[in-house]
Amino acid sequence: MDQQHPIFIPGPTNIPERLRRAMSMPPRDHRAPAFGRMLVPLLEEIRTVFGSRDAEVALFTASGTGGWETAISNTLSPGDRILAARHGTFSQRWIDLCQRHGLDVEVVDCEWGEGLPIDAFRRILAADEKHRIRAVLAVHNETATGVCSDIGAVRTVLDAEDHPAMLFVDGVSSIGSLVFRMDDWGVDVAVAGSQKGFMLNTGLAVVAVSDKARAAMESARLPRCYFDLREMLDAGRRGQYPYTPAISLIEGLRESVTMLLEEGIEQVHARHHRIAEGVRRAVSAWGMRPCARHPRLYSDTVTAVLLPEGHDGTDLVNHAYATYGVSYGIGLGYLATRLFRIGHLGQMSDVIALAGIGTAEMAMKDLGYPIRLGSGVAAAQDYYRVAGEAARRRSA
Amino acid sequence: MDQQHPIFIPGPTNIPERLRRAMSMPPRDHRAPAFGRMLVPLLEEIRTVFGSRDAEVALFTASGTGGWETAISNTLSPGDRILAARHGTFSQRWIDLCQRHGLDVEVVDCEWGEGLPIDAFRRILAADEKHRIRAVLAVHNETATGVCSDIGAVRTVLDAEDHPAMLFVDGVSSIGSLVFRMDDWGVDVAVAGSQKGFMLNTGLAVVAVSDKARAAMESARLPRCYFDLREMLDAGRRGQYPYTPAISLIEGLRESVTMLLEEGIEQVHARHHRIAEGVRRAVSAWGMRPCARHPRLYSDTVTAVLLPEGHDGTDLVNHAYATYGVSYGIGLGYLATRLFRIGHLGQMSDVIALAGIGTAEMAMKDLGYPIRLGSGVAAAQDYYRVAGEAARRRSA
Amino acid sequence: MDQQHPIFIPGPTNIPERLRRAMSMPPRDHRAPAFGRMLVPLLEEIRTVFGSRDAEVALFTASGTGGWETAISNTLSPGDRILAARHGTFSQRWIDLCQRHGLDVEVVDCEWGEGLPIDAFRRILAADEKHRIRAVLAVHNETATGVCSDIGAVRTVLDAEDHPAMLFVDGVSSIGSLVFRMDDWGVDVAVAGSQKGFMLNTGLAVVAVSDKARAAMESARLPRCYFDLREMLDAGRRGQYPYTPAISLIEGLRESVTMLLEEGIEQVHARHHRIAEGVRRAVSAWGMRPCARHPRLYSDTVTAVLLPEGHDGTDLVNHAYATYGVSYGIGLGYLATRLFRIGHLGQMSDVIALAGIGTAEMAMKDLGYPIRLGSGVAAAQDYYRVAGEAARRRSA
Amino acid sequence: MDQQHPIFIPGPTNIPERLRRAMSMPPRDHRAPAFGRMLVPLLEEIRTVFGSRDAEVALFTASGTGGWETAISNTLSPGDRILAARHGTFSQRWIDLCQRHGLDVEVVDCEWGEGLPIDAFRRILAADEKHRIRAVLAVHNETATGVCSDIGAVRTVLDAEDHPAMLFVDGVSSIGSLVFRMDDWGVDVAVAGSQKGFMLNTGLAVVAVSDKARAAMESARLPRCYFDLREMLDAGRRGQYPYTPAISLIEGLRESVTMLLEEGIEQVHARHHRIAEGVRRAVSAWGMRPCARHPRLYSDTVTAVLLPEGHDGTDLVNHAYATYGVSYGIGLGYLATRLFRIGHLGQMSDVIALAGIGTAEMAMKDLGYPIRLGSGVAAAQDYYRVAGEAARRRSA
Repeated sequence: MDQQHPIFIPGPTNIPERLRRAMSMPPRDHRAPAFGRMLVPLLEEIRTVFGSRDAEVALFTASGTGGWETAISNTLSPGDRILAARHGTFSQRWIDLCQRHGLDVEVVDCEWGEGLPIDAFRRILAADEKHRIRAVLAVHNETATGVCSDIGAVRTVLDAEDHPAMLFVDGVSSIGSLVFRMDDWGVDVAVAGSQKGFMLNTGLAVVAVSDKARAAMESARLPRCYFDLREMLDAGRRGQYPYTPAISLIEGLRESVTMLLEEGIEQVHARHHRIAEGVRRAVSAWGMRPCARHPRLYSDTVTAVLLPEGHDGTDLVNHAYATYGVSYGIGLGYLATRLFRIGHLGQMSDVIALAGIGTAEMAMKDLGYPIRLGSGVAAAQDYYRVAGEAARRRSA
Repeated sequence: MDQQHPIFIPGPTNIPERLRRAMSMPPRDHRAPAFGRMLVPLLEEIRTVFGSRDAEVALFTASGTGGWETAISNTLSPGDRILAARHGTFSQRWIDLCQRHGLDVEVVDCEWGEGLPIDAFRRILAADEKHRIRAVLAVHNETATGVCSDIGAVRTVLDAEDHPAMLFVDGVSSIGSLVFRMDDWGVDVAVAGSQKGFMLNTGLAVVAVSDKARAAMESARLPRCYFDLREMLDAGRRGQYPYTPAISLIEGLRESVTMLLEEGIEQVHARHHRIAEGVRRAVSAWGMRPCARHPRLYSDTVTAVLLPEGHDGTDLVNHAYATYGVSYGIGLGYLATRLFRIGHLGQMSDVIALAGIGTAEMAMKDLGYPIRLGSGVAAAQDYYRVAGEAARRRSA
Repeated sequence: MDQQHPIFIPGPTNIPERLRRAMSMPPRDHRAPAFGRMLVPLLEEIRTVFGSRDAEVALFTASGTGGWETAISNTLSPGDRILAARHGTFSQRWIDLCQRHGLDVEVVDCEWGEGLPIDAFRRILAADEKHRIRAVLAVHNETATGVCSDIGAVRTVLDAEDHPAMLFVDGVSSIGSLVFRMDDWGVDVAVAGSQKGFMLNTGLAVVAVSDKARAAMESARLPRCYFDLREMLDAGRRGQYPYTPAISLIEGLRESVTMLLEEGIEQVHARHHRIAEGVRRAVSAWGMRPCARHPRLYSDTVTAVLLPEGHDGTDLVNHAYATYGVSYGIGLGYLATRLFRIGHLGQMSDVIALAGIGTAEMAMKDLGYPIRLGSGVAAAQDYYRVAGEAARRRSA
Repeated sequence: MDQQHPIFIPGPTNIPERLRRAMSMPPRDHRAPAFGRMLVPLLEEIRTVFGSRDAEVALFTASGTGGWETAISNTLSPGDRILAARHGTFSQRWIDLCQRHGLDVEVVDCEWGEGLPIDAFRRILAADEKHRIRAVLAVHNETATGVCSDIGAVRTVLDAEDHPAMLFVDGVSSIGSLVFRMDDWGVDVAVAGSQKGFMLNTGLAVVAVSDKARAAMESARLPRCYFDLREMLDAGRRGQYPYTPAISLIEGLRESVTMLLEEGIEQVHARHHRIAEGVRRAVSAWGMRPCARHPRLYSDTVTAVLLPEGHDGTDLVNHAYATYGVSYGIGLGYLATRLFRIGHLGQMSDVIALAGIGTAEMAMKDLGYPIRLGSGVAAAQDYYRVAGEAARRRSA
């Protein structure tokens, strides 16, 4: 039997039944008052997921890439200087997008597996006495390497240097799953995607903007129309849309935010941490290690596992899919063959994680990896038992 | 009981159960080979719906507006001159989009309710001896007024004047429902939307491009990234995507195209015509008339009904929704209060149309309109009986 | 396009999306405590739908016929005498069931279209001085003829004669849709079905029993096992089941009862009356009449329409299905060809009723019936407009 | 997050998405010809699942218990003698059902964990010179103990003794999952249930009858009506039903049989064996053993695991449910506390089985069982890897 298994890719995530249903309602008229009555409070509640009280939120029918374009094209003008690090596929893509919009990007190249280069950022910002740098781009969670960077540290540097640059954060694979403090970190534009922490189908870029970013819109001269934030925010305040909205996804998001708030944002973060830590213990029991270079960089939504010499990650992923019907993430970019990625975000539990770990073990054994069957599962079980109990005690 | 009724808005349309299910599959890995094996033939088959053998098709996660932006930003450069008519909300919006991208739009203003101004186009193109006009924009079906224009006539004019301008067509509310002949009409970029003739949720802009448009991409200098056609077409040929695709919608589109081809594209067009004609006969029985000024302009996907003096379309739509739970389209733009719109596209049948006509009658009677209950229904029944039988005879 | 239309048969009814979802949950363990926590209050709340405070309710995995067998086999012994009228297919079937269980049925034959023969019942009960009649069978709503009988009158007769016979009522096509007063009418066993007023899939017989019926179980000697009420009631009190329960239907019933109580039982009854009355006015406008012989017998869940001479109901139903994809009920029993039946119960609205009436008109016209298109629709619209408004005023 | 996990109870099973959809179609008219066109070939194809070419099949809206009642009440008369073994909850219940119908049951009591007592049956049948025994009852797969008995051996005994008794088999938790050879074993009535091997919701008893059983119906005098086989078989041959059918389940069964035939009945059996054997190896690695006393009795649909002294199975099941959200089967009858049961039938895969085994390990460890985490998982992985590969090679 061709059985649909849970997937272990770093997004799209497994979709809770409740959200599949919310996205599958019969069509409604988006111009009827009921739509606006749903949209306005939703836009406000989403802020909780971003860790913000004051940001304004817009929902664009697009993938996360569209969210990046929104951030850039609404706040900057041709030739503007921005600062960014390149340490993975997604940071690279964002830089490319900026360059194609005629921005002048100062790129700091880092090793893949490293986090944001805080020291380099400090030096560059300190040297930028004329404040030509208009914005700093930061990928919170590099999905390609499983690295979660310290956005708060970027803010600290900006503040220490008294630098007025805006701070734009790609939170696509973090927001809704990992701790995110938009207000505390002084983030000006944060971008999330429906198919990650919100556990929905792909198709909504969720963009939150600060007052400062809103002010920047007034003078920004990059062309934009589909991704025009002013129109979208204006319409949203009235419960409307500048074009036909993706109602099914918005109804899904309404339910998703309700689910996240019911569980409690902190509990959601704690659950992601627990599951991820179990996966990492399994990786360690296999005698391997994450691509992320320091434990403080470990991502709780995706673990990129560096493979032993002589083994190819893409082969492993293809074998697991063909043989066991289970999807893991392939490596991307220049690390493509050296690792495979285990996604553990969204709808995920200790129980399902065991299936993911156990199946990876079978696939690795099939391909001659030097691992002992059951070793990773046992390490994860050992952790889940105790950490899970602690979690239940806290929430009781 | 709050019962979900069929909707009668000009898109999103009622969604067939079969398509709701196709869009609601558990998530799959878009990097697994199965996705590519589904995507490549889908992109080819879609051409049949556009009336083309040669166009290349791209699926952007966006509304139709994103499709317009795709057409413009991939083929033109700042300052390029384009020709467009303004005769409804959607043509107006497209012009605005062009202007915000720094294009020089020559606008022909027409009465709302009129079709494309073929004669004016001829004059302007004839006068454009230096061929400064790079593209002509044409809205095939103006959803605001229920006007379906003759795209073939625009092509005839371009050919007669031997003018090399590209022809861009907004087919959002026509393609999949009305006759569309991309190749015969020499259309260079055609834009459709998932939520209209394809009967899906909103979220995919379906864009088809000719060889000539592809050639124009090489020199076009407007910035684009999210809507970059070259990247999307390159990826699509390999069954891939430049960013996370909206898999659920693409799976839905796969099923939708299958449904359209099973019914037969010509039968789909004939069904739309039959249902629309019944609605128009009902309108006539009420003593009213469509906004479209000539029968040859009547749209088979939406009828904008001009109301008697002293009656307000928005009041009517709100009353029908509040009292009977049925959604009709409100008027848009400066005709907002003078008409209401009956959408009859996508999943629609004679039987369901009777409910829409009959409910409109009750709502109008409630508000003191001078109509006789049952008059429109009887006119539609009379037509559906005979035309439906003829259709069945032809297809047998 | 093969479009699924609303159905107009007297059950199964159209199923609300909300109930389809409730019935389609992933499987759960029926022995887990959560099941019992759902079942116990559900069994209590269902009583409201039966118009009872004291009855006990059992849910058997069976059709309504199984509910009849439950009533009989748990309370009677071979040779027991019962009294019943035969005035339609369903009353006939129940009599047959009794005879096959070795009961001695005194049958009162009536014209089809008549209600329960209260006078005959009075005579027979009065003559039964030794109280040999152990039970009176009464079909509340004869689905074959669209006749709703006066159960209260049967109780009045029993009380007037001081007769101790139990009163068993087939409420399959009435309970949940029509006024039902189990306590006031002194009903001892009432049987409902999931696929009628509860708007669910077929598969649950919902049986409510009085104290008196429970007492009768102690001495009843007909064999029963699957339909053993004592086991089922005992288990139900503890939130359990004597065998594997039909969980999906029970979860559906949980949601259905919630929906009925949200709308308000009285509003549900009023809605059924309004929709039925509109259908009857349409029938009258066609120059026809219901099979039910007196207005006080008109059923608000199904109208059996007597056809003009020379027309065959089965032909009409087949034609409507083949031509328009709409299902009506065929005639049953010896009236099979002389009528067709319009079901208007469960999920039904004025709006959808118009489609049903209008399509019947087209089908009749196609077959040469002497009716005017739109005439029935107009009569129904006229009634729905005013009666609906009155309903909304009352509930506001 | 309250996540719905796969369940590991011995039915209802996990339901494939494809079957959930098939069961959730909008309602159709069961009297329309389309229903009959679906039913007739379905009833024929089901025979393949029963291992029969000639049996006739009937679908009753009931649980498996209703199927037992069907077998008995249609073929026997009050006072008839039957032979049965009591070696688990379900065999006990069937005996009780017979006794309540006034049959004279000769019961052979066996240890729970044993299979059918072939030798005792031989002695009793041999001694029954007057052939007073009309039927032998055999539970193919005792769900309470995880024991699969040898039905072919019963047939051999009957034939050896030249005894004309009918052979009735409870295949509720075996048919569709385990090898079943109705014709070869000379089974006269076989009973299956929709919620086991067919992977559907509970609610259909699937009953197959031989020519001999059909002949017995003519003289059988036990009362039956709801479960009357003659009426049901007669109606079924015409694609009809004697009462309102459970259409949603029948549509689900249609799809289920298609799925089973697509996978191949032998492959379905092999898959069940592989998954079960992996579970048993896990049990062995834990230092425990199945309740079934001999390997030849091991059931491939459910493993009843005998627990170490001092541990209570119900506690374990409750703990696993409360702590990890995973359902296992509790012990039943007098073994209730001494074991727990792992269901591994229907929609189940190696991958999901690992989650079930791994979670059981965590739960047992939590409760102080003397097991090593990961030990059972490793034993299962080791088996699944090799056995799965062999299976894929065979089917390639």
